[in-house]
Amino acid sequence: MGAVFVSEVLGTMMLLLFGCGVVANAILPQTKGTGGGPSAAWLLINWGWGLGVFAGVFVAYKSGAHINPAVTVGLLANGAEEFAPGVAANVGNMFIYFAAQMLGAFLGAVLAWAAYKQHFDADGDPAAKLGVFSTGPEIRSYGWNLVTEIIGTFALVFVVILFGNTPHQLGPLAVALLVVGIGASLGGPTGYAINPARDLGPRIAHAVLPIPGKGTNDWGYSWVPVAGPLIGGVLAGIVAALYG
Amino acid sequence: MGAVFVSEVLGTMMLLLFGCGVVANAILPQTKGTGGGPSAAWLLINWGWGLGVFAGVFVAYKSGAHINPAVTVGLLANGAEEFAPGVAANVGNMFIYFAAQMLGAFLGAVLAWAAYKQHFDADGDPAAKLGVFSTGPEIRSYGWNLVTEIIGTFALVFVVILFGNTPHQLGPLAVALLVVGIGASLGGPTGYAINPARDLGPRIAHAVLPIPGKGTNDWGYSWVPVAGPLIGGVLAGIVAALYG
Amino acid sequence: MGAVFVSEVLGTMMLLLFGCGVVANAILPQTKGTGGGPSAAWLLINWGWGLGVFAGVFVAYKSGAHINPAVTVGLLANGAEEFAPGVAANVGNMFIYFAAQMLGAFLGAVLAWAAYKQHFDADGDPAAKLGVFSTGPEIRSYGWNLVTEIIGTFALVFVVILFGNTPHQLGPLAVALLVVGIGASLGGPTGYAINPARDLGPRIAHAVLPIPGKGTNDWGYSWVPVAGPLIGGVLAGIVAALYG
Amino acid sequence: MGAVFVSEVLGTMMLLLFGCGVVANAILPQTKGTGGGPSAAWLLINWGWGLGVFAGVFVAYKSGAHINPAVTVGLLANGAEEFAPGVAANVGNMFIYFAAQMLGAFLGAVLAWAAYKQHFDADGDPAAKLGVFSTGPEIRSYGWNLVTEIIGTFALVFVVILFGNTPHQLGPLAVALLVVGIGASLGGPTGYAINPARDLGPRIAHAVLPIPGKGTNDWGYSWVPVAGPLIGGVLAGIVAALYG
Repeated sequence: MGAVFVSEVLGTMMLLLFGCGVVANAILPQTKGTGGGPSAAWLLINWGWGLGVFAGVFVAYKSGAHINPAVTVGLLANGAEEFAPGVAANVGNMFIYFAAQMLGAFLGAVLAWAAYKQHFDADGDPAAKLGVFSTGPEIRSYGWNLVTEIIGTFALVFVVILFGNTPHQLGPLAVALLVVGIGASLGGPTGYAINPARDLGPRIAHAVLPIPGKGTNDWGYSWVPVAGPLIGGVLAGIVAALYG
Repeated sequence: MGAVFVSEVLGTMMLLLFGCGVVANAILPQTKGTGGGPSAAWLLINWGWGLGVFAGVFVAYKSGAHINPAVTVGLLANGAEEFAPGVAANVGNMFIYFAAQMLGAFLGAVLAWAAYKQHFDADGDPAAKLGVFSTGPEIRSYGWNLVTEIIGTFALVFVVILFGNTPHQLGPLAVALLVVGIGASLGGPTGYAINPARDLGPRIAHAVLPIPGKGTNDWGYSWVPVAGPLIGGVLAGIVAALYG
Repeated sequence: MGAVFVSEVLGTMMLLLFGCGVVANAILPQTKGTGGGPSAAWLLINWGWGLGVFAGVFVAYKSGAHINPAVTVGLLANGAEEFAPGVAANVGNMFIYFAAQMLGAFLGAVLAWAAYKQHFDADGDPAAKLGVFSTGPEIRSYGWNLVTEIIGTFALVFVVILFGNTPHQLGPLAVALLVVGIGASLGGPTGYAINPARDLGPRIAHAVLPIPGKGTNDWGYSWVPVAGPLIGGVLAGIVAALYG
Repeated sequence: MGAVFVSEVLGTMMLLLFGCGVVANAILPQTKGTGGGPSAAWLLINWGWGLGVFAGVFVAYKSGAHINPAVTVGLLANGAEEFAPGVAANVGNMFIYFAAQMLGAFLGAVLAWAAYKQHFDADGDPAAKLGVFSTGPEIRSYGWNLVTEIIGTFALVFVVILFGNTPHQLGPLAVALLVVGIGASLGGPTGYAINPARDLGPRIAHAVLPIPGKGTNDWGYSWVPVAGPLIGGVLAGIVAALYG
C-alpha cells in the first residue's frame, strides 16, 4: 500500500497546488491575473481547478487517481471491488486513502502558498487569504450550503462512475472537464469544495502557516464542505449502482 | 424501454442541472460568478452548457444520449433505424423519448433551483429569475427568433448526425464542444434553446416552484424555442440524409 | 466531383455561419454577448471561430475538409498527390475547391446574417456591420498587414500538414484548437483572415445584402486577406515539403 | 542530428511565435485583444501559450518535442535513455538541444515582432514592449521569484514524464492543457517562464531588434527564469525517477 499511499498524496498535492494557485492568482493583490469582472475571474478559476484535476489524475496513476474522499467513498457505496488494480475496496483502505488525500491537500496548499508567498505577505483582505485555501458560502446557511455541496458532488461522482460506459480516449481530460463544468455551473453559491480533503487540508494549512494579517479559519463552516461531499459521493455511488 | 426512459430522464436532468446552474451563477445576485462584462459571462455560460451536454451524454449512455427532442426527431427524419442499440426509431418511441426528456429537464431545473435556492430568494430582477430557467429573445420578433432557433438547431443536429464519418476518439466531448460553439456563435439573439425540452421543462418548473418575487413565465414566447428546434432538427435530418 | 464540391460548400458554409455569428454576437448591439472588455470578447470570438472549424471539418468529410483555399494551395505546393481520397491534387481541382469554398463562405455569411437579422437592422456602427463579415486592420499598412496574414496562415497550414506525424485521436479538434490559438496569438493586428474565402465571400455578401445603415465594403483592403493567406499557404507547403 | 536540431528550432520557434504573439495582442496598444480586465486577459494569454505548445509539439515531432531546456535536462536527470527515438540522452546532445531551443525561441520572437511590427512602433509603455518578449515579476524578490519558477517547472516536467502511465489519445493536447493550467494557477507572480529558452531567447531578440521607445532588457532578472526552470526540471526528473 506504500506506493498507493504516495500516489494519492502526490496526486492530491498536485491538485491543490493548481487549485489554490489559481485562486491566489485571481484574488490576491498584485498578481498577473487579479482584477476584472467576476465572471472572467470565475472562468479562470474553473480552468485552473479543472486542469489541476487533469495534472493530479496523471500523477496518481498508481492508486486509481481518486484524489478526493468523495470518490473513494462513492466507489465503496457503489459496490466496487477495487479502488485501483490490486487494491481492494474496503473500509480500511478507504481510511488509508483519506489520510493520503488529506496529507496531499495540505502539502499542495503549502506549495501554492510558497509560490505566492509575497502576495500573501502583501497587505490584503483576510477573507481573500482564507479564500485561497478553503471555500466559503456567499450567503451563509448551513442547510442550503450543504444542499449545494451534495448536488455538486453527486454530479461529479455519478458521472465519474459512468465514464466507462461510453467509448472515448480522453483519459484524465474527461474528469478535468467535468470539474470545469461543475465549477462554472454549481460553484456559484459555495465555491464548489466537492472534495472534503480539498477544503479541510488547506484550511489546516491556513491555520498553521505564518501568514501576516490572516484572519479566522472559519471552523464554523468547515464541516459543510466535508459532510456535503461525503453525502453526495455516497448518494452517487448508490444511485449509480441502481442505474448503471 | 424502462432503462431507456430512465436514461433519457437522468441525462437530460444532468444537462439542465448544469445549464440552469451556470446561468444562475452568471446572473443571479451574490454568486461567485455574477458581474463583469457580458462577453465574459457569455463565455462562462457557453462552457457551462457545453459541459452540461458532456455530463448528460455520459449519463444517458443507455438511450443513445439524445437528451434533446430535436435530436430524436432529427434521427427519425434522417431515416435512422434505431434511436439506440436495440431501440427502434419510430414515432411511438419518439414520444417516449420526448416524455423522458421533458421530465428530465423539469427535474434538472428543480435541482439547479435547489442548488441556488438562497440566490433565488434574494431580491433580484424577475426577468433574471426566469432567464435561469428558459430562454428569451433580446429583440422580440417571433418570426426572426424562430429563424435563429431553426438555424442553431440545424447546425447542432446536422453535425451530430455526421460525427461518425470522421475518425476521432473524443466521445461526448465532440457534441459538448459543438454546443459551446453554437452558444458562442448563434446564441446572441435568443439564448440558444436549440432543444425544446431544455426550454419548456424548466419554464414549467419556473411556473410551479415557490420563487419569491418571480414574474411572468412568458408563455407568449414559449412556442418559439419548441417549434424552432423541432423544425431545425427535422431539416437537419433530411439534409443529412440527402448529403450524408 | 459533385459530392466533393458540395462537401466543400457545406463545410465552408458551416465555418462561416459560426465565424460571422460569433463576431455578430460580440459586436452588434443588443445581443447576449456584446459589451465588456476586448480581451474577453476576443477569447469568445476565438472559440467561436475555432469551433466553427470543428463543425465545418466534420461536415466536409467527403472532400478532405480543406474549407480554406490556403490549405488547398498549400497541399498542392507541398506536393500532395490527393486533396482527398480519390481526388487528385492538381490545378484544375484546386479551382473547383476555390469555387466551392467561395460559394460556401458566401452562403454561411448569409445564414449568419439571417440569424442576427434584427441586430443588423438595429442602429449600429457601419464598421461593426462590415466587421461581422470581413476582417480589417487595426493599423492600416498593406505591407505589414500582409506580413501578419502570411505568418498566421503559415502557422495554420504548416502545422496542419504535419498533424499526421504525431499520434493522437483528436480528429477535427486538432485544427480547431490550432485556429483558436492563431486567433488568440496572431489575430491582434488584422483579425486573422488566414483564409481567402473566409474574407472575400462574406465581403461580397455584405455588398449585396440589404443591410440598413451599412457603409463601405472596404475593397481597398480586400486583396490583403486574399493574397496574404495564399502566400502563407504556399510557403507552408514548400517548407513542410523540405522539412517533413 | 541535423533533423533533430532543425526540429527543435522549428518547434520552439512556433511556440514563441504564439506565445509572444498572444502577449502582444493582450498588452500592446491598438490590437483586437487589448484592454479589459486582467483576469480575462490572463485567460487569453494562458490559452495562447498553451496552444503554442500544442502547435510546437506537432512541429517538433522529429526530436521528441522538448522545445524547452527544462524538459531536456529533466529527462536526463530522470535517467531516460533517449531524448527521442534514436537520439541518446547525454550531456552532449543536451547542449545541442539547448542551442536549438535558444535559436528557435529567438526566431519565434522575431516572427511575433514582425506580425505585430506596427504595434511595437506605436507609442507604448516600454515595460509592455519587454513584457511581450520576456517574463518579469510583479513583486521583485529573486529568491521567491526563483521558488515560483521552480515550482511551476516542477509541475510541468513531473507530469510530462508521467503522461505515459495513463491511457489516453490526446497527443500534444495533454501538454498543451497542462501549460494552460500552470499559467492560470502558477503564473500570477512571475509570468511563468518555466522554460529558459522561452525567456532568454526573446530577451536577446528584444535587445537587438530595432524597437522604437524600448527600455531596459532587465538583465538583472534574466537569470531567474533560466535557473528556476533548470532546477525545477532536474528536481522533477529525480522525483519522477524515485516515484514513477
